[in-house]
Amino acid sequence: MLSVAVVGASGYTGAELLRLLAAHPEFRVALATGESQAGSAVAELYPSLAPAYPDLTYSPFSLDDPTFDLVELGFLCLPHGASQAIVPELRDRVRWIVDLAADFRLKDAGLYPKWYGEDHACPELLGDAVYGLPELFRAQIKQADVVAAPGCYVTASTLALAPLLAAGALEPTGIVVDAAGGVSGAGRPAKATTTFCTVDEDFTAYGLFDHRHTPEIEQNLTAVASQPVQVLFTPHLAPMNRGILATCYARPAAGSNPSTDGLLAVLHDAYDTEPFVLATERSPSTKATLGSNAAHVTARFDPRTGWVMAIAALDNLVKGASGQAVQCANLMAGLDETTALPTVGLYP
Amino acid sequence: MLSVAVVGASGYTGAELLRLLAAHPEFRVALATGESQAGSAVAELYPSLAPAYPDLTYSPFSLDDPTFDLVELGFLCLPHGASQAIVPELRDRVRWIVDLAADFRLKDAGLYPKWYGEDHACPELLGDAVYGLPELFRAQIKQADVVAAPGCYVTASTLALAPLLAAGALEPTGIVVDAAGGVSGAGRPAKATTTFCTVDEDFTAYGLFDHRHTPEIEQNLTAVASQPVQVLFTPHLAPMNRGILATCYARPAAGSNPSTDGLLAVLHDAYDTEPFVLATERSPSTKATLGSNAAHVTARFDPRTGWVMAIAALDNLVKGASGQAVQCANLMAGLDETTALPTVGLYP
Amino acid sequence: MLSVAVVGASGYTGAELLRLLAAHPEFRVALATGESQAGSAVAELYPSLAPAYPDLTYSPFSLDDPTFDLVELGFLCLPHGASQAIVPELRDRVRWIVDLAADFRLKDAGLYPKWYGEDHACPELLGDAVYGLPELFRAQIKQADVVAAPGCYVTASTLALAPLLAAGALEPTGIVVDAAGGVSGAGRPAKATTTFCTVDEDFTAYGLFDHRHTPEIEQNLTAVASQPVQVLFTPHLAPMNRGILATCYARPAAGSNPSTDGLLAVLHDAYDTEPFVLATERSPSTKATLGSNAAHVTARFDPRTGWVMAIAALDNLVKGASGQAVQCANLMAGLDETTALPTVGLYP
Amino acid sequence: MLSVAVVGASGYTGAELLRLLAAHPEFRVALATGESQAGSAVAELYPSLAPAYPDLTYSPFSLDDPTFDLVELGFLCLPHGASQAIVPELRDRVRWIVDLAADFRLKDAGLYPKWYGEDHACPELLGDAVYGLPELFRAQIKQADVVAAPGCYVTASTLALAPLLAAGALEPTGIVVDAAGGVSGAGRPAKATTTFCTVDEDFTAYGLFDHRHTPEIEQNLTAVASQPVQVLFTPHLAPMNRGILATCYARPAAGSNPSTDGLLAVLHDAYDTEPFVLATERSPSTKATLGSNAAHVTARFDPRTGWVMAIAALDNLVKGASGQAVQCANLMAGLDETTALPTVGLYP
Repeated sequence: MLSVAVVGASGYTGAELLRLLAAHPEFRVALATGESQAGSAVAELYPSLAPAYPDLTYSPFSLDDPTFDLVELGFLCLPHGASQAIVPELRDRVRWIVDLAADFRLKDAGLYPKWYGEDHACPELLGDAVYGLPELFRAQIKQADVVAAPGCYVTASTLALAPLLAAGALEPTGIVVDAAGGVSGAGRPAKATTTFCTVDEDFTAYGLFDHRHTPEIEQNLTAVASQPVQVLFTPHLAPMNRGILATCYARPAAGSNPSTDGLLAVLHDAYDTEPFVLATERSPSTKATLGSNAAHVTARFDPRTGWVMAIAALDNLVKGASGQAVQCANLMAGLDETTALPTVGLYP
Repeated sequence: MLSVAVVGASGYTGAELLRLLAAHPEFRVALATGESQAGSAVAELYPSLAPAYPDLTYSPFSLDDPTFDLVELGFLCLPHGASQAIVPELRDRVRWIVDLAADFRLKDAGLYPKWYGEDHACPELLGDAVYGLPELFRAQIKQADVVAAPGCYVTASTLALAPLLAAGALEPTGIVVDAAGGVSGAGRPAKATTTFCTVDEDFTAYGLFDHRHTPEIEQNLTAVASQPVQVLFTPHLAPMNRGILATCYARPAAGSNPSTDGLLAVLHDAYDTEPFVLATERSPSTKATLGSNAAHVTARFDPRTGWVMAIAALDNLVKGASGQAVQCANLMAGLDETTALPTVGLYP
Repeated sequence: MLSVAVVGASGYTGAELLRLLAAHPEFRVALATGESQAGSAVAELYPSLAPAYPDLTYSPFSLDDPTFDLVELGFLCLPHGASQAIVPELRDRVRWIVDLAADFRLKDAGLYPKWYGEDHACPELLGDAVYGLPELFRAQIKQADVVAAPGCYVTASTLALAPLLAAGALEPTGIVVDAAGGVSGAGRPAKATTTFCTVDEDFTAYGLFDHRHTPEIEQNLTAVASQPVQVLFTPHLAPMNRGILATCYARPAAGSNPSTDGLLAVLHDAYDTEPFVLATERSPSTKATLGSNAAHVTARFDPRTGWVMAIAALDNLVKGASGQAVQCANLMAGLDETTALPTVGLYP
Repeated sequence: MLSVAVVGASGYTGAELLRLLAAHPEFRVALATGESQAGSAVAELYPSLAPAYPDLTYSPFSLDDPTFDLVELGFLCLPHGASQAIVPELRDRVRWIVDLAADFRLKDAGLYPKWYGEDHACPELLGDAVYGLPELFRAQIKQADVVAAPGCYVTASTLALAPLLAAGALEPTGIVVDAAGGVSGAGRPAKATTTFCTVDEDFTAYGLFDHRHTPEIEQNLTAVASQPVQVLFTPHLAPMNRGILATCYARPAAGSNPSTDGLLAVLHDAYDTEPFVLATERSPSTKATLGSNAAHVTARFDPRTGWVMAIAALDNLVKGASGQAVQCANLMAGLDETTALPTVGLYP
């Protein structure tokens, strides 16, 4: 058994890690930190976790905490910017770090001021961190000490479009990603924008033109396309707890001979050996992935208008966050990648 | 007081007409037909309507029904195809007809086999019917005997894009309309696709490439653009009762100098004198329109990617169906267009 | 036209008043106060209200505000305790006051410390204030200067049980009121208990044994029963915006000969002349009352277990708050009691 | 590995069994029958199950199906009445049967005509079948060939009240169980009562006085109380997928000295050694049990009114159906009772 710390365990991604780790045969949660909840029981904040963690209590975070002497793997579930402040030292305390924030996702430090409003605190580490999308970067993740787990919308968009761009099937610019996501993506703290009465029975676009997942999508797709990819990304808030659907529109590459069959063949080639990505001709449903680490992906070509569509569905807290983080940790620790990760969704 | 028949009053658009007409000072519901519910009380099927219609009972539809001797205005809320079968004769019985189905919306009879799978039964009437979108065709509606009230997605898409196309601000092809709608758009009958357990906590695209509202959107936009407009329209089912959000993507017209301010100015010019369309710089929320006949519309230009976005929100059963039908009927009957039509949404 | 002030117009009951008053032919909103929102536009906080109130801005509350020179009617939508502080002076500024808080609901000043945790600031006014449930106290409301509009759960529970207790059909003790309510009852401010992710897909009891509506229910029922009535009241939070269902259990009075028909007859006697209460043999549905000022009420007797059940459904923000407040104001101002108050629910 | 048949696998309890069995190390699904879906792929009807069952197809049910030669354990997820018709013969084909319907739950054959409207087809088997609530009947389940898994509302009500009645803390009559449940309890087939538009934003009581779970609750509680227990049971439909909350009201036994601490002590005594029942002083939340086999239970005494309240929450498809069925099957097969059954809820 390997001892694990969840830093920032009072938020939804932290709690989701605790849920998944409760069933993990090789990882044992030795420490759960949460500044605002320090001293209180995990079971009080999350009665859902009470049966598995009757005695676990949130600790304040401190590198001097002696529990870190035992910890080999740390998951960081902190607000943006906070990981940058602790990773440089935490690396000396724990063998493996999986950061679920955006702090180490972008390779180009120059993008942080533009999209996050401030310079990166330790840009020299950006090169060390491996982007934690196993379907694209499995080999590197296995060797990594620090993994930056992807954003939820980014995972969906990338899984939908990457194989098609890698295969040269799409024009790299003019791509539209129109997505909808559940409310848990906004985190646990109460805000005016995420009260039940604001969200229920509503559907609204937000983050128009400036959502922070945009450069991350472009970075991934540029990597696989080997040419600059530009995306207009528009998220919408849907009245549901979990789930992301990314509906993507792109032009077929000039000179290509697009067809739905051809696009689906590219997806099957890419994903039929992947344990967590299902290529399908069905229109993906977010609910089919609820609570699972699965992503469902499809693609089609519309001869009438000339558009290619690619659609991906996943659970933003699992394949879009904590499940993917565990998937990466399994790879880093040399375990079976699928350990403790369900592929079957909770339905209905 | 003018006597009104609601033909097909057991479905959601029929019931919504009854709700709105309960507050109408000039229209009196003399007849409510509903084949499957014939003989049963409206109050049993819709307890929500019980206080206003304690004694109204569904009748079977028959042109021989003597009540039609009194009726001057008929609203038809029938499944596609059924209106074609009765309008030719019903015209002789009632002065004004507002059809809420698609039967008289498309001007080109050749589109019916393609999108609806069968020839039109009385194509000679297509020219007589006026398309019931007052913001585009107010003058004609005032003179009409037969009005074809628009589809719900069509109203949202058209209100978002029409002024921009009319102003020459957009390229007429390559337009994407990515929309989400509440479940009431699928009607009252129980179906596997609209049970609570299927829809709740889910978000899924449907009708890919072949949704019947597509040619109607193109017809409207082509009319205002004075050149052929082509649209890829993709609806999604959102877990909510009502509401449509149409998020539209288009390229600025070649040679134009696009800006968010300029686009908003076009919308304000078009809508600031309209009683039911609100041009706004806010991102429209479907919930803000709940139960009202209002549509909220915005537009923006993204200099980074070169896309124009236009977004419209409305209540699919009001401005997207029954409210718009009453708005048309008010115009046809020479009344104040806003009679009995709320602009304020039920919130939360 | 009579000028009206809505004091505390940024919360949900205030906004609901603005919605209803937008359609009122005799009341004109001259002032909307809201401390936290002072200076901002009503249309920004509530885009749903934008079409009717394009220029209305929240003011800070001040008795020196010259607008009060014009105002004849004030609705107070303030947190508990705040009305006590201003009503003594406000009475000199406006002719009629309808307070939607609990500040003047309880006749026995001694109950305030017990259920609200503090003494009442002006107990001498408790006798002047009339309890604003027209179905019980219509005559007094017509003469009143100050009306205390009832709590939402209280209205439902009282309407279900009062006629049966008045008719001597029930034992006055051992009554259980098990109720469920939508989230808007908790108000607009963001709280951990009312975020979407906390509430959606959840059902939980709260306020066990100590909910503040308990003494108010008992006060009403004691008044009609002419003997002390005791109730155990248990609310539950249901994942919906609006709506209250009160399911009430009581023992038939000793010596009575209970039957469902007899109980229904009592309800019909009480309510068939009431414009807003529908006695029905159907099981009431909260959704049938959505957005309306209607309450639907039923009762039954179970010969097997000997229990009487009475059930009421209403919209907590309308008949449970702002609609009832307008109903009272109509009576106070000598208008038709039903002015601007829909009885038909928004469905679905 | 033990081969398992799921008979009636196209409904929600069948699909939930497939979900849970996908993670079971000792049970292998060899057969999934479903009359209406025979020939179609499980993955088409339930894309959520596609990753685990890519090739499983629904079969028609036939005792001649050779797959039954391999099957040692059969789960029956059929409509009421259908199990009676096949269990007599199926017992000769498979070693263990767990029936999830009501067909073998009631010990008194005379109750079937009253509550289910028809005589039992094989009353001689009622004595053989063991009631599948391990917390009450674990020893018998271990020895059983046929287990009748309890109803969902029954499990919640029984777990809340049984220890208190067994301890002699409650009067056995005059008990009220007021419960709310999610829509999945009504099954997968589309019905007018369970469409999204009927249920969403609604809360309604149903099955007044005659819900079929009533005699089952009384049978369990009578067994533990050793005297006849009578219950008035009232379910409500809540707008959520899953979850049951049973709020129970009872009088303390005459001569007892009731207190909240005492009641909680009884629950802790009963459940602290149980793997799936959590005794807690918190008000139980259905959402905390989502997707898990856990039940959360509390109790309190109100000195003001003299009522005892006991509340239980669980997931109707897991601890209320398929999870409990697997729990029983684990016991029958001599496995660890907790195999493949999560105690941690999916949150949010």
